[in-house]
Amino acid sequence: MPNISSRALQMPASPIRKLVPFATAAKERGTYVYHLNIGQPDIPSIPSALQALRDFNLPVLEYSMSEGMPQYRAALTKYYHSLGITDVGPDHFIVTNGGSEALSFAIGVLCDQDDEILTPDPFYANYNGFAAAYGVKINAVSSYLEDAFALPGIQEIRDSITPKTKAILICNPGNPTGYVYTREELQALANLAIEKNIAIISDEVYREYVYDGASHTSMLSFTGLDEHVIVIDSESKRYSLCGARVGFLVSRSASYLSAAMKFAQARLSPVVLGQMIATKAHENDGEYLRNVREEYQKRRNVLVNALNAIPGVICPTPKGAFYCTVQLPVEDSEDFSIFLLNEFSYEGETVMLAPAGGFYNDPEKGKHQVRIAYVLEEKALLRSAELLALALQQYKNKNAK
Amino acid sequence: MPNISSRALQMPASPIRKLVPFATAAKERGTYVYHLNIGQPDIPSIPSALQALRDFNLPVLEYSMSEGMPQYRAALTKYYHSLGITDVGPDHFIVTNGGSEALSFAIGVLCDQDDEILTPDPFYANYNGFAAAYGVKINAVSSYLEDAFALPGIQEIRDSITPKTKAILICNPGNPTGYVYTREELQALANLAIEKNIAIISDEVYREYVYDGASHTSMLSFTGLDEHVIVIDSESKRYSLCGARVGFLVSRSASYLSAAMKFAQARLSPVVLGQMIATKAHENDGEYLRNVREEYQKRRNVLVNALNAIPGVICPTPKGAFYCTVQLPVEDSEDFSIFLLNEFSYEGETVMLAPAGGFYNDPEKGKHQVRIAYVLEEKALLRSAELLALALQQYKNKNAK
Repeated sequence: MPNISSRALQMPASPIRKLVPFATAAKERGTYVYHLNIGQPDIPSIPSALQALRDFNLPVLEYSMSEGMPQYRAALTKYYHSLGITDVGPDHFIVTNGGSEALSFAIGVLCDQDDEILTPDPFYANYNGFAAAYGVKINAVSSYLEDAFALPGIQEIRDSITPKTKAILICNPGNPTGYVYTREELQALANLAIEKNIAIISDEVYREYVYDGASHTSMLSFTGLDEHVIVIDSESKRYSLCGARVGFLVSRSASYLSAAMKFAQARLSPVVLGQMIATKAHENDGEYLRNVREEYQKRRNVLVNALNAIPGVICPTPKGAFYCTVQLPVEDSEDFSIFLLNEFSYEGETVMLAPAGGFYNDPEKGKHQVRIAYVLEEKALLRSAELLALALQQYKNKNAK
Repeated sequence: MPNISSRALQMPASPIRKLVPFATAAKERGTYVYHLNIGQPDIPSIPSALQALRDFNLPVLEYSMSEGMPQYRAALTKYYHSLGITDVGPDHFIVTNGGSEALSFAIGVLCDQDDEILTPDPFYANYNGFAAAYGVKINAVSSYLEDAFALPGIQEIRDSITPKTKAILICNPGNPTGYVYTREELQALANLAIEKNIAIISDEVYREYVYDGASHTSMLSFTGLDEHVIVIDSESKRYSLCGARVGFLVSRSASYLSAAMKFAQARLSPVVLGQMIATKAHENDGEYLRNVREEYQKRRNVLVNALNAIPGVICPTPKGAFYCTVQLPVEDSEDFSIFLLNEFSYEGETVMLAPAGGFYNDPEKGKHQVRIAYVLEEKALLRSAELLALALQQYKNKNAK
């Protein structure tokens, strides 16, 4: 019999994946499924990146340097300068296979087995996976739907830091909440990181998607934090290049960078085609991002209005990213999500949602909530809300029997 | 001050990278450097794969399934059937970002912190990195240049297995040795794995490159081992697609596969462009591989003859891959390798070698050896051997002073 490590046994299975068999069965019955469960946008990839593929003309697809191609890191430098973060250079970037690998490197650099990472609850479910792979624990401090998932009080966060806590991890703008931290909230975290001498891992992959004219504050824009901050970034959502698997980590700490380089060197090279096309993607005048931001903002407005019009549904208006965490008038959002796929259909259509339990350290806390990604066009979102309203009514009637 | 994990502090830096600054300096002085230190072939990538890039015509570069695209896993199934391994199907493959990620998943699935992996010494240096990232130890059993790096005696291997040993890891054909294990050697390992109830991780990424008409035996070709074997594979060397970062693991064990899937799901998706072009690469009639194999065999013959003609140099004839581990008449091969870059040049040219110390658990054991990759064309290899002979003479004279 095979021996499997405790590490692997303790790793959580993907909470989203869990419902895939139900969706597959629904499709096999001929039901059309609106996928609001995953963060795969329908937004076309930035055309210049795809053109770069068609222009490929090298004879050998070689490894790049472990830290990434010089031309790509030069493009990233220019991009960060355009964000107003002008004191970073090519050597502050380590290119990774998606933001995922950057997260994995950051946790590996900072934490030993049984160490802890503190993060606001709910959080991006895969943080659990990356941490568990290293035997690291996620310690989550509650944020609340009633507060639109604002940062928990700083005293509560301070009280939750133990000698094992090596980093505070934030996702800003937030997945699954859509919350965008204010400069004041981030300053409080910065002060706390200095006070407790711990790191801040700031996952800023949705940076471009902040709405209502608000601006995003990067953790790299604070002074005195150079030896504390690792930023996680990715081209996946920025340029709708999820499949390219190009991300990177940014830090001004020579210690973090040289430790992360050991992880980078072990796997030789990040993906080269992705770096090539992302380099081209960064040669843009901002119009693509402005258009996509506008599109997401319209979708958000349509969706949030439609959801809040459904009796018993509460959806705080997300300020960024393309997710909202929504309260439903159901006892168990997973059971309801399965009902949507397994029993419900209206005019041959249904909706797939992500039960929010998988985004909380204690799944009970998300039992009445779902995460919805507004990655479909307006018409599909309106139709999805309509289906959701009908399904909630039908589910209520069924349970009342 | 930043806190770095013990995990990261204990991870070895890349032994090859160490000499890069010397190579850079040599180039800056105008010296041409023949790179025999790394496994980056100059062989053109298989043309069908590059054509697939130019034919790319999807509007959105989306994530693939975490385990890989169905069409690529179908292509892999067909490829394994062509190898005579006919009882594997698409569900036995998990696609990864290079063979590197497959190795990392395999170690994570099998080993907890402080567990051990047993491997013949010398071994591919990055095994150390992947193991150390998980706090896993490499326990190496000596193989010897005098035996052309044949498998150590099975009794010695048995005696080296401790209660912490979770897997035997082999690289076949071997990097850095070029050794190809015989069916008898592999059968002995298979018996031992069953006897001790441990796993075998078989890194077969150089499978196609076996010379002199010999054939390669996959660890998947043994019966009764389904619950023991994880094979590591990659398109990097097969089709000269190193930069595509497409690899995969293969196993018939449902337990290993479902544990590895947790790692795969945490990082969402392997690289999609790589999968697309590798799918096309597998639609070939074998001519590309035959030609490349013939090319490597010619290079090997030229190099081995030229090296063995140098006084004091001993190079066993490698049976596969494109590396040889070579004994040099020097006290310290790292010092000599630095001399080559730092002091030596002949007609404006020099050679970069990989000191073999980094490929041994105890670097002392590789102190008189270097790894040479025959990834350059014949003329360059002959010239490199000529430069090496001159440098050895000059180095000897210098040290005699």
